[in-house]
Order: sequence, then C-alpha cells, then structure tokens
Amino acid sequence: MDLFTIETPCLVLDKRKLVKNIAYIKERLSKLGVNLRPHGKTAKNIDVITMALEGQKGGITVSTLKEAEYYFSHGINDIIYAVGIAPVKLDRIVDLIKKGAHITVILDSLEQAKFVAEKGLLHGIDIPALIELDCDGHRSGITVDDSLMLDIGSFINNKEGINLAGVLTHAGESYQCQSVEEIRALAKIERDIAVKSAEILKKNGLPCSIVSVGSTPTASFAEELSGITEVRAGVFMFYDLVMAGLGVCDKNDIAVSVLTSVIGHQKSKGWVITDAGWTALSRDRGTASQKVDQGYGVVCDVSGKPIDNMLVSSTNQEHGIILSRIKEELDWDSFAIGNLFRVLPNHACATGAMHEHYYVVDGSTEVVDVWHRVNGW
Amino acid sequence: MDLFTIETPCLVLDKRKLVKNIAYIKERLSKLGVNLRPHGKTAKNIDVITMALEGQKGGITVSTLKEAEYYFSHGINDIIYAVGIAPVKLDRIVDLIKKGAHITVILDSLEQAKFVAEKGLLHGIDIPALIELDCDGHRSGITVDDSLMLDIGSFINNKEGINLAGVLTHAGESYQCQSVEEIRALAKIERDIAVKSAEILKKNGLPCSIVSVGSTPTASFAEELSGITEVRAGVFMFYDLVMAGLGVCDKNDIAVSVLTSVIGHQKSKGWVITDAGWTALSRDRGTASQKVDQGYGVVCDVSGKPIDNMLVSSTNQEHGIILSRIKEELDWDSFAIGNLFRVLPNHACATGAMHEHYYVVDGSTEVVDVWHRVNGW
Repeated sequence: MDLFTIETPCLVLDKRKLVKNIAYIKERLSKLGVNLRPHGKTAKNIDVITMALEGQKGGITVSTLKEAEYYFSHGINDIIYAVGIAPVKLDRIVDLIKKGAHITVILDSLEQAKFVAEKGLLHGIDIPALIELDCDGHRSGITVDDSLMLDIGSFINNKEGINLAGVLTHAGESYQCQSVEEIRALAKIERDIAVKSAEILKKNGLPCSIVSVGSTPTASFAEELSGITEVRAGVFMFYDLVMAGLGVCDKNDIAVSVLTSVIGHQKSKGWVITDAGWTALSRDRGTASQKVDQGYGVVCDVSGKPIDNMLVSSTNQEHGIILSRIKEELDWDSFAIGNLFRVLPNHACATGAMHEHYYVVDGSTEVVDVWHRVNGW
Repeated sequence: MDLFTIETPCLVLDKRKLVKNIAYIKERLSKLGVNLRPHGKTAKNIDVITMALEGQKGGITVSTLKEAEYYFSHGINDIIYAVGIAPVKLDRIVDLIKKGAHITVILDSLEQAKFVAEKGLLHGIDIPALIELDCDGHRSGITVDDSLMLDIGSFINNKEGINLAGVLTHAGESYQCQSVEEIRALAKIERDIAVKSAEILKKNGLPCSIVSVGSTPTASFAEELSGITEVRAGVFMFYDLVMAGLGVCDKNDIAVSVLTSVIGHQKSKGWVITDAGWTALSRDRGTASQKVDQGYGVVCDVSGKPIDNMLVSSTNQEHGIILSRIKEELDWDSFAIGNLFRVLPNHACATGAMHEHYYVVDGSTEVVDVWHRVNGW
C-alpha cells in the first residue's frame, strides 16, 4: 500500500518522527530524574504507547475507560484515569480492578471520595485515588491553600473501599502561554504546587506515594522536577501546530497529518478545494489565538514537507479550502485535480479523534502498517 | 435501559422531535410541489433516513462513499454523492454501479468529466454525473454565466462512460444569513440559478433531468420552487443551535443532545465541570458568529428542557465547563456531582460525527432503541 493509492481523506503517521519525538522527551525527563507516565489520549493506540513506555516504570494515563480497558487488554496494568470520577463510571472501574488492573481514579471533592469509598466497600476492594490539584486556574482541582485537600485526604485515609495514592495536577493553561519563558515559569508553579501539597499531606500523616504533574509544554521546558514522581504527557509523541506555535516543537517534527485529494478550484478566488473537511481535520482552531493563525492546518506535499504560505483556510463537512497567504503565489499546476497533499493539524488529539486508523509511513510514501485507534468511551 | 443508568457522555436522539421535524419539511415541500431527497450526512443512520424517505420518490444524498455503501446495503438504490468526485474514489463508484446502485457523481471541471468518462468506458458502464453550480460564492461550482458549464455539458454528452444527469447547487451561505428575509432571498437565487442553468443546457440540446437544490435554511423558507425537481437537506431532521439562531427552528425542536454527568465544581468561578468535552460535543462553534453565542451548547435538564441562561462555555478533551450567563443564578444543588444534563449542539452534523450510536428516547427518559451511525469514509 502507498499514499498514492489509498483513499483520501485519511490519517498518516510518520514513524520516524514519532520515534524521534518520544526519544527526545524521554531523554529530557531522564536527565531531570523523573519517570514518564505517557498519556494514552492522543495516540489511543497500543503500538505508540508501547514505544512511549519502553524504559519507563510501566504506568500510563488515560482519558476514557474505553482507553483503560483497551490498554489493559494489551497488558498494561498500571493506569491513572485522569478525569474526575463520576458515579456512573465506577462499575467499570470495579470490573477492571477485579480483572487485575491497578487503576487509579482522581477526584477533588468529598462527594466523590464518598461514593468511591462506598463502591469499593460494596465490592470488598480498595480503589486507589489521587487528589486533583489546581495549579493554574485552568479547570478542575483544589488550590494548595484550600483546607479541603486535607479534609479529603483524611477522609480517604480513614475509610475502607478507597486508598489515598497521592496528588495530581495538570498545567492546562500552558497551551495559552505566549512565550517559552511563560511555559518555564508555569512548569515551576506546576511542580511547586504538587510538591507542596504532597508535603502537607505527609506532614499530616497521610500517604502520598504519587506526585504527578504534566502537560507537553511544561514537560518540554521544566528545569527542575525534584519531588515529582512522574510526568504525564501525550501530545509530544505527535506534536501539532499549537505546539509549534508555542515553541515546543518545529513544524517539521509533527508526526501526524491528513492526506487529502484536490477535488476542485475557484481560481478567481485563489481557492483549491479538497476532500478533507472538518470530519477529517476536526473543527479545532487552536492556533486562532496564537501569533500565527494556521487556519485549519498547514499544507504539505505528499512527502510531508510544508509548502510555504499554503494553509487550509476553511472547512465544511467534507470539503476543505486551501489558499496561499500570498494569493499570486499559488502554483495551480501543482494543485491539479487528483493531486495529493498532507495537512498538519492544529491539535493532534482533536484531528486524531476524527479517524479510526493511522496509515503508518516510515520515511517514504509506502504504508508500512495500519494502526487502530480506540475512540469513544 | 434508561438515561439515568447509561454511561455518559453519549448522544441522545428524541424520536418524537425527529418525527415532527421530518413531517414539517415534507409537508412544506409537498405544498411547493417538490420532492425531498434527504441528505444522509447528518443522521448517518438508516432508521432516520427511512423515515425521511417515506412518501418521497426514493432517492437520497450522501457525503461519503461509506454512507453510499451503507445505505445501498440497506436497500436504497438512488444515491447522489454530493462532493466533487476525486480520481481515487472512482473504483468504489464503479463497484457500487456494478452491484446495481444508481449512484450519481458531481463535478465542476472538464478534468473531472474526463477521468469519470475514462473510468466508465474502461468498465463498460455509464457513470451519471451532475454539473455542480455555484449560486452564492460559498464553495465549489460553476457560476451561471460561465461558458464552462456548456463545455462540460457538451463534453459529457458526447462521451461514452459518462451520462449527463442534470445540475446541482447548494446555498451553503444560508448558514451565514442574518435574517429570515436574507434566507428567503437566497432561496430564490438558489432556485433561479439552478433553473436558468437547466434551461441553458436544454436550449443547447443537452439533457437535464435533475435540477437539484438544497440546504436546510433555504428548504425552510423557499417560497417558490417551480422548475426544481428535488430539494436536498439533512440538518432539518435534527436541527441544532445554529438553525435556531437563524430562525429556522426553535430550541425546543432540536432532536439531538449529549447526555453528560457533573464531575466537579469550581464554585468561586461559577463553574460546573462535566464529562462532555469536545470529544462528545465537537469543536464546532457555529453560533460564535450569530447574534447569541451559545458557547459549546445550551444546557437542558435530563428530560431535554433547556435551562435558562445555562450553557457550556468551554471544553477540553473530556471536560466541559458549564456556567450561567448570570453567575448568581446558578443553583448548585441541582448541579450536584453525578447529576445528569443534556447539551443541545451548535451543529448536529459535527456533534453527531463524534459518536458511534444514538440512544433513542421517545418522550421519556427510557431508551427505546440504539441506532448506529456510519462515520468515516
């Protein structure tokens, strides 16, 4: 199979870039003396996560229970489900634990701690739980100065059916940073808050074996991670235009792209119409708030090399419109009907979520493998 | 099965609203004396399309060949694949025709007409083709004053391997209209351009049995459709917040919603955290450019009734943040952890595309059926 003969649109994964990206972060974290707990939510594929796990302590992070069940079925035992636990999801957690998985939930309220404990007690098991911390106002979690953390920690420690595993935080605001200096500063805050919280728990006689931080930007620029037991990150395996805009990677490092065929032209407007709409690229516009807005993605030739100034300016369900930032520059002959291009995504997680498979290439247009993705819940 | 026990997030389809929405458009088009050719791209499900087809002439529209193959396998023979044809897709078109499908392609260039004719000739079949017209500058198609239309028509008519079936246009700009009057005016333009193009073809001795127009907004407000043989539309079956913002429907008519669980709070910020992120709601922000920006969706109670001023203000991969437009109004007790809500989508096609199934309800919270969606290509 070859990129020239498979049907468009489809998702292409460049294994060479994947291998390089994974090696880079592992080496970086290794120098900082901290374990990588890869996040399975970007790749949603066991082949990719197996590469990311190699040489690490063996645990992963997931964003859905479907991922947890999938990775567990492929032999991965140590899993953190890093979305605040909802009551309706506990039966599947219990099933996984009974099958032998070491699955850890996260929570930031006494209500959650109570229903987790009740469920564990009912089934005669202890469900491991991490307290979620808020380090940057991004989303969920307890702030370091909130006494609720100790209340939850004490509650968990005194109850059957639940175990206190430690603390977890995620510097999600790092995606909004305007400079590498800002990311570096946020990485320090992320680390400091996690470590300080762990110290408070321990000082109060509570266990805290896991001190977990992570996001691809902060993992890429953290300078000091003492006291941290693991870094969670997922996007770094593929990277994307948002990460390139942040200075976390170069456009040429991006390992995933969408293969598309030209299906029409509106020459007076400088438009090339393709068959990669938002069902293939996603509606993500993550670069819209960055210094350089990349529309719905940067256009590359079929080998994956970015073409200067060419981007996908808009999308409909099954149509994309490519144009040049400099209208006069468009080379119509190279954009003839049927010609193939690859589009780098704004957000690898979002574009990946639109596809069931990766067509894996390894330095040429030959498809060397087809890897499945475990979408849904 | 009941909405209170199925796992969140998931896609809920209210059959009562679906039935009502379909009946409304059928009656409207029937009064205008025109056939409905339902678009299968919104529902991507045979049960829904069967309802929409009932009483019509039997043909449908699709946006992918996977939809075409799926609907054909369920007994639907007459299919327009309404995305400009790409060379790499012709083998599947040929396969469908050889199996007995009457599948029609669309094109707007001589290059496409040539490769379609070559492929048909190679296989000893005639592939039916419609010329795509541009009525509003939205995307693809030939303008009515462009002599290219006659060139393509004559080329097709003189070639073996391809048949001229007629003309097709889509007033995609209707989604950007600012008033019902604007939609009505665009519906007239859409109709007039299709009819005028058909007349030009016929005057030049070319066949034009199909004169096809359509979009949900123009189908909802067209006043006169003489000369039109069929109206294509899909969103009307479900409707969505973009359609409500346009005045095409009421919020209470929207038949699809995403069921979600509360998983946390940030009370000082007025945030309710849920498990419906952009993987469940999509990244679509179609109401952002409308008079009322509905964020990532309007929040309803579990019965599907909209709650005043509550909307999903932002999303991450597996998290949604609900807030009230009037912060003080948030009733925290009703948003307790584990409580269930339903979110109306900005864009039914985009939200649907994130799910594999519909959990069908019919006037209560009981799930009466589970219907599959045929996503992908």
